[in-house]
Amino acid sequence: IEEGRDDELLLYLEDVHHADIAEIINELELDQATYIIKLLDSTKTSEALMELEEDVRERILDNLSAKEIAEELENMDTDDAADIISELSEERKQEVIGQIIDEEHAEHIVELLRYDEDSAGGLMAKELVKVNENWSVTGCMAEMRAQAENVTRVHSIYVVDDKNKLKGRLSLKDLLTASSKANISDVYIENVDYVNVHTDGEEVARIMRKYDLEAIPVVDEMGRLVGRITVDDIMDFMREEAERDYQMAAGISEDVEADDSILHLTRARLPWLVLALFGGFISVTVLGTFDTAMQEHGALFFFVPLIAAMAGNVGVQSSAIVLQGLANKSLRGSLFNRLIKEVLLSLLNGFALAILLILGGIFFLGLDFWFGLTVSVSLVAVIIIASLIGTFVPIVLDKWGIDPAMATGPFITTSNDIFGILIYFTIAKVILGF
Amino acid sequence: IEEGRDDELLLYLEDVHHADIAEIINELELDQATYIIKLLDSTKTSEALMELEEDVRERILDNLSAKEIAEELENMDTDDAADIISELSEERKQEVIGQIIDEEHAEHIVELLRYDEDSAGGLMAKELVKVNENWSVTGCMAEMRAQAENVTRVHSIYVVDDKNKLKGRLSLKDLLTASSKANISDVYIENVDYVNVHTDGEEVARIMRKYDLEAIPVVDEMGRLVGRITVDDIMDFMREEAERDYQMAAGISEDVEADDSILHLTRARLPWLVLALFGGFISVTVLGTFDTAMQEHGALFFFVPLIAAMAGNVGVQSSAIVLQGLANKSLRGSLFNRLIKEVLLSLLNGFALAILLILGGIFFLGLDFWFGLTVSVSLVAVIIIASLIGTFVPIVLDKWGIDPAMATGPFITTSNDIFGILIYFTIAKVILGF
Repeated sequence: IEEGRDDELLLYLEDVHHADIAEIINELELDQATYIIKLLDSTKTSEALMELEEDVRERILDNLSAKEIAEELENMDTDDAADIISELSEERKQEVIGQIIDEEHAEHIVELLRYDEDSAGGLMAKELVKVNENWSVTGCMAEMRAQAENVTRVHSIYVVDDKNKLKGRLSLKDLLTASSKANISDVYIENVDYVNVHTDGEEVARIMRKYDLEAIPVVDEMGRLVGRITVDDIMDFMREEAERDYQMAAGISEDVEADDSILHLTRARLPWLVLALFGGFISVTVLGTFDTAMQEHGALFFFVPLIAAMAGNVGVQSSAIVLQGLANKSLRGSLFNRLIKEVLLSLLNGFALAILLILGGIFFLGLDFWFGLTVSVSLVAVIIIASLIGTFVPIVLDKWGIDPAMATGPFITTSNDIFGILIYFTIAKVILGF
Repeated sequence: IEEGRDDELLLYLEDVHHADIAEIINELELDQATYIIKLLDSTKTSEALMELEEDVRERILDNLSAKEIAEELENMDTDDAADIISELSEERKQEVIGQIIDEEHAEHIVELLRYDEDSAGGLMAKELVKVNENWSVTGCMAEMRAQAENVTRVHSIYVVDDKNKLKGRLSLKDLLTASSKANISDVYIENVDYVNVHTDGEEVARIMRKYDLEAIPVVDEMGRLVGRITVDDIMDFMREEAERDYQMAAGISEDVEADDSILHLTRARLPWLVLALFGGFISVTVLGTFDTAMQEHGALFFFVPLIAAMAGNVGVQSSAIVLQGLANKSLRGSLFNRLIKEVLLSLLNGFALAILLILGGIFFLGLDFWFGLTVSVSLVAVIIIASLIGTFVPIVLDKWGIDPAMATGPFITTSNDIFGILIYFTIAKVILGF
C-alpha cells in the first residue's frame, strides 16, 4: 500500500477516525509514519498526533521541521498544543512557537505552558464560549456563533463581567427561549461550579465526578475566566493517575508500558530493587546479631520468611486503604482514633492467624509449646506494628506535603520486613532465653 | 437545626446541590437522615440517594416502606433505579417493583436487572432520544421534544429503522439546519460507534476514551437499540475499577473504605493473610529440609529475607506491567517474545544488583568469596524466575478467562517467596556443598 498510490491511501484514510489512524501509525515504521502524517490534511494529522503513543510521537516530531510542527499546532486545541510543545527541547520549543502564524493561539499556548501539568491550569484549554453580562440576547447570539467556530463542542456558555470575572453560566436552551430584547444579566444562572488555575487535577476530577459536570470553567487568582476543562481531558487524566498509583504500589517509578524498551523498563524498576537490596542488607545484619540462637533454636530461622511476609502484606493492606481514603478525601476523625482502630483490627486478624499458626505448627510441623507460643505472640505483635506503620506513614507524609503514594509497595514491605524480624527475635529472646 | 423548624431547613436545602446534600446525610445519624430524605421533595432525594455511601443508603432504605422507595425510584433514571434495587433483598425487590406506578419505567428497570453489573447492559440507561429514519424533520422535532422530557441531558439523537435497529445518529445542529421538508434518512450520520449489551465495561470505557465520546448507544444481539451509556456513568465505573485493581494488588478482596466497620475490613483482609500464612508454612518446610546447612553455613539463613523480598518485588513489578498491558489491550507480540524480553530485563537488573551485593557483602559484611558468589548467583537466578512467573501467570490466567488481577500482590509475593528460597538453597548446595 505504501509506495506510490497516494490517492488510494488518502481516499481510504479519509473515512477512518483519527484515533484509529493513530493506532495504525503506532504500528508502522518511522519513515512510513512520517510519510502518512505529511500526506494527510492538517486537521486530521493534528488529531492523530495527539492520540499517538508518546515515544512514537517524539520520533515523528524529530523528523518534522519546526514549520511543519507549527502548522499541526495551529489546528489543535490550545491544551493539546501545549502538551505537545512541552515534550520538545527548550530550543525547539521557541523555534516552533515562533513559527505559529496565529498570534493569539501562540500566546494562549505560551500561557498554558506556565502552569504545572497536573494542575487545573495545565489541564485547561483556552477555547471556550463566553459572553458579557451586559450584552443583549440578540447581540450575544451573533457573537456566540463567531466564538463557537473555534470550539469543537459547546458544553456551556460562560458569563463574565467587564473585567472578565466569571459571573455565571448560560445554557443554549435558556438563550433560545429568552426574549430577544432581554439582557444576558436577566437570564443567566449565577450558580456555577469553577476551579482555580492552581487546583490539583485530582480535585478537579473529584468535583466534576461529584456534580456530573461535562466541563468546568477555570479562573485565575482574581476570579477572571481563563479557560475550561472538559470531561474527556479529565477522563484521560484520571486514567493516567490510576495507572501511576498502581505502578507506584508495584514498585515502578516511571510511567512505562509492557512494550517499552528494556532500558526504559530497567530505569523504572531498578531503583526500587536497589532499595529492597539495602533493606535486605539491614535484615542480614539484624539476623546476624541473633546468631547465638542458631545453636539451640535454629528452627526460629525457618519462620523468618513467614513473619516477614506477614509484616509486608499487612503493611501494604493498611497503607493502601489509607491512601485511597486520602485520595477520596473520605478520611474522617483524628489520627489517634484511626490508629486505635488499626490496633483493634490487627488484634482480630492477628488472633485468628495465631490460632491457625499454633494448630498448624503443633499438629503438622511438630513444634513444642514454648516454640509455638513464641512464633504466635510474635505474629500478633508484628501484625499490630506493621499495620500501625502502614497507617501512620502515609498520613504523616501527606501532612508534610509529600506524595503519600511514595510510602507504599516496596517501601512499606522493606521497612516492615526489618521491623518484623527485629520484633520476632526480641520476643523469642525473652520467651526462650538465649 | 433538626427539631421542628422544617420550613427553614427546607429553604436552606433548596439551594444546595444534591451531591452536597448526600455528603451532609452521610454525616448524620440514621433517624435524622431518614427524616431529611422524607422531608425533601422527591426529585432531590432521589438524586441525593444515588450519591450516598452504600452502607448509609442501605440503612436508610431499610427504614423506608416499599411504597416510599418506589416513589423515589420513579424520579430516577432507569440505570440508577436498577442499581438501587439490586442492593435490596430478593423479597423486597419484588415488593418495590410492584409499587412503581409507571409500568414502562418498571419494565425498563426489570430489563436492566437482567444484565451483569459490569457489562454495557448493566451500565446503560433506557432514557434516550431516538427517531425513526422514515420520519420527516418536522414530525421528528415534535416527537423529540416529548422524548427529551425524560432525559436529563441530550447527548445525541439516535436514528433507528422500523425494527428499532440502530442506523446512525443525528446532531441537534444538523436537525435545526435541515430543511423542514427533508426526511430523517437524508440527514442522519451513518457512522456511529456503539457497543453490545454484553460488552465488558472496561471495553466501553476504552472506546469512549479513545473517541472522546460523551455517550454511546447500546444494541442487543439483533442490533436493536436498547439503551445508552453516558460519560459520567463511565467515569464512576472507571474509578471503581481503578480502586478495585489497586486493592486487589494490595491484598484486599472486597470493596472497602477506611471508614468501614472493623468486621467488614477484617473480612476483606484476612483471606489474603491466611493465604500468606499457608505460603509461610511451605517456606518453613522448605527451609527445614536444608537444616543440615545450619552447622557450617548458618549465615546462609541470614540472607533468606533478602532473597525472598527480591523475588516478591520483582514478581509484583512484572505482573503489574503485564496486567496494565492486558487492561489497555496494548500487549503485542507472542508470549514467547515477551518471556525472552523479561529474561533480558532480569539479567540486566540481576547483574546490577549482584554487583552491588558482592561489593556490599565483601566490604561491609565481610563475607568470603564463595559465599558471596553463592548469594549473587542465587539473586540473578531468583530475579529471572520471579519475573517469568510474574509475566507468565497473568497471561495464562487471562487466556483461560480468569481475571488476571487475582495473580498479583500477595499471590505473586507468596509463591515467589517459596520458589526464591528453594532456588537459593539449591544453588547454595551445589556451590558450597553440604
